[in-house]
Amino acid sequence: MFNSAVTNLNAPPVSIVLNWKLSYDGGKGPLIDMSQAVPGYAAHAEILASLSLAAADPELARYGPVEGDLDFRSAYADHVSQIYNAPIDVSEVQVTSGCNQAFVAAALAVAGQGKSILMMRPCYFNHESALGMLGIGIDYVDGDINKGLLPSIEAIEANIGPKTSAIAIVSPNNPTGSIYPASLLDDILDLCKHHKIWLILDETYRDFLPMDMDFPHQLFAHNSWQSNLIQLYSFSKSYCLPGHRLGAIVAGSQAINQLAKIIDNIQICAPRVAQYALTPMLASMAQWRQKNREKIALRAAVFKSVIGDLPEWDLLSSGAYFGYVRHPYTGIGSRQVAESLAVKAGILVIPGAFFGAGQDGALRFAFANAGRDVIGQLGDRLASTTL
Amino acid sequence: MFNSAVTNLNAPPVSIVLNWKLSYDGGKGPLIDMSQAVPGYAAHAEILASLSLAAADPELARYGPVEGDLDFRSAYADHVSQIYNAPIDVSEVQVTSGCNQAFVAAALAVAGQGKSILMMRPCYFNHESALGMLGIGIDYVDGDINKGLLPSIEAIEANIGPKTSAIAIVSPNNPTGSIYPASLLDDILDLCKHHKIWLILDETYRDFLPMDMDFPHQLFAHNSWQSNLIQLYSFSKSYCLPGHRLGAIVAGSQAINQLAKIIDNIQICAPRVAQYALTPMLASMAQWRQKNREKIALRAAVFKSVIGDLPEWDLLSSGAYFGYVRHPYTGIGSRQVAESLAVKAGILVIPGAFFGAGQDGALRFAFANAGRDVIGQLGDRLASTTL
Repeated sequence: MFNSAVTNLNAPPVSIVLNWKLSYDGGKGPLIDMSQAVPGYAAHAEILASLSLAAADPELARYGPVEGDLDFRSAYADHVSQIYNAPIDVSEVQVTSGCNQAFVAAALAVAGQGKSILMMRPCYFNHESALGMLGIGIDYVDGDINKGLLPSIEAIEANIGPKTSAIAIVSPNNPTGSIYPASLLDDILDLCKHHKIWLILDETYRDFLPMDMDFPHQLFAHNSWQSNLIQLYSFSKSYCLPGHRLGAIVAGSQAINQLAKIIDNIQICAPRVAQYALTPMLASMAQWRQKNREKIALRAAVFKSVIGDLPEWDLLSSGAYFGYVRHPYTGIGSRQVAESLAVKAGILVIPGAFFGAGQDGALRFAFANAGRDVIGQLGDRLASTTL
Repeated sequence: MFNSAVTNLNAPPVSIVLNWKLSYDGGKGPLIDMSQAVPGYAAHAEILASLSLAAADPELARYGPVEGDLDFRSAYADHVSQIYNAPIDVSEVQVTSGCNQAFVAAALAVAGQGKSILMMRPCYFNHESALGMLGIGIDYVDGDINKGLLPSIEAIEANIGPKTSAIAIVSPNNPTGSIYPASLLDDILDLCKHHKIWLILDETYRDFLPMDMDFPHQLFAHNSWQSNLIQLYSFSKSYCLPGHRLGAIVAGSQAINQLAKIIDNIQICAPRVAQYALTPMLASMAQWRQKNREKIALRAAVFKSVIGDLPEWDLLSSGAYFGYVRHPYTGIGSRQVAESLAVKAGILVIPGAFFGAGQDGALRFAFANAGRDVIGQLGDRLASTTL
């Protein structure tokens, strides 16, 4: 007998999609993989060299502090202070083994049994299934189709109930790519203060803002943000090392005390080699990160143009890292559409259905994963494929 | 507002103990750290070289399969098949980011809300706090002081109730070092079959059995063990790389399907560098593991002799990796005793109170962490210290 909260979950969505590629015969040319949210380019050579050096060190093979290695926490606190122009103390950083673990820890820290978390829909599937698995209730706010699938502050407030422990936001958003304006995030944090609940803000894609945006938000400038804000980040996308599993949480030191207990139970400590190797890189790789941001922005532009040229396809939203697209196959579920695109056209994308109820008309394209020339071939393939 | 299931937990126990050493003035000589369950010696040079090579590879910096890298799962399946002389299929292996994560995943897979897990006391603190944090109920079976603190099968059966989803066992045990005889484990698995519940068996210390023991148990020879057994393992102790975070679960493929969903939500995949580096080492490091086993067995012998020479101290149990000792300070709580030993004698051990109710008279010594010469100094220090 298994836990029904787990048997009720789908199999891991990305695994399902990656399996489809085995059925593609190559007839339309090399596979175009725009499924998983990973950079298509490799980590910087200096990062790899530093990882290699650290992995040879027996000291780094030992356990480290639960909250993370002090030098890395300190470097990350400085880094975050600089991005947001607000002082973040080292005691306000908890290192995690990836950002999914950060979300699980944040959810557990604030939401016990009988409580719920408010999610914006379409929602990142692993957030939804993590809450399901933990027995934490979920309420949904649907994004406004006229606002790039962002929710309105009114709709968010209307859905806060007595059981609500937190509002979970992903900005830049997965799957839509939409970026929450700083003013909307201000309003959401104020709402959280008013209702004495938490804002769990996942900023995994913050280093890929469009080139005309200067900073993600000003939440850390709010008075006593520590009582209502838990911010999550992943090093996987910006430093091209998802296989090393590294993420971080910024929260008030009281929240960190609770989070550390959870991380200790789940993991003891985050892997140390990547912590050590990245410590100097947060500052030294600023230019490289900026170049990658430009690269992704150019891919986004090509992607928008490609979809714009397909009369039957509709770009629902786009921004950093992802495009969220309405497919033309009305009456056919997104999972079947995505599987057919994989098998017949060699295009790997994630079906909208994986991002929650009401999303069956959509597909997610992770354009960070493919070069501009490859994205350019998308149009012909999509236009010439019949399901 | 935080989740009360988390605020109710103690701070991470090892962190508390490690903090005490800052207050030791060195007056009795160098600190003797027998707190954390880690080998005091370093990883083999070939392992470190292999880790270093793997960390330089950008391919291994990418995401891997949720269940673990296929070559590593396959090597581990072979390894386990050989140890237990029973066929384990690659589909029966889930790689995790350490054994604590394996336990969290196993508990979540079998125990939903309103369910409980039966634990043997004294119990490994992180197992207890993980269940508490997840809102899974705990029932306890106290070890029998006349049987090396192992529980009797009658006591276990008497505590199985309608809510019981699983029996959690650690063998060799943490904190007592006691080794469950194969016949007792057979009986426990039969009990699980009879009651249609799970045996979650943590064998983190299985490579450190006393030299006169040939194999840990024969559970994998039971018919359809897959329906009732989930076995956990850590690579941290045997390969000296806790900082890399690597563990594994062996379970039926149906259980693996459920476990993979949980691991995907918590972690996506285990860190890949250590998986790749260890793949050939499971076989090639057999002799090195054996030498370390001998080394730890010799430390155990010295430890027993040291405690035996102290008339006021009493070895409650010992075996692989740990000695569990009754301290002479009746009326003083184990936490205060341990803190005083740290500050006044420079001896770092874990208080019995951290291993559950009724354990305040005991202390856990992790003798794997100190050389024989160091362990030899314990006696004088303990005898010459007044609290």
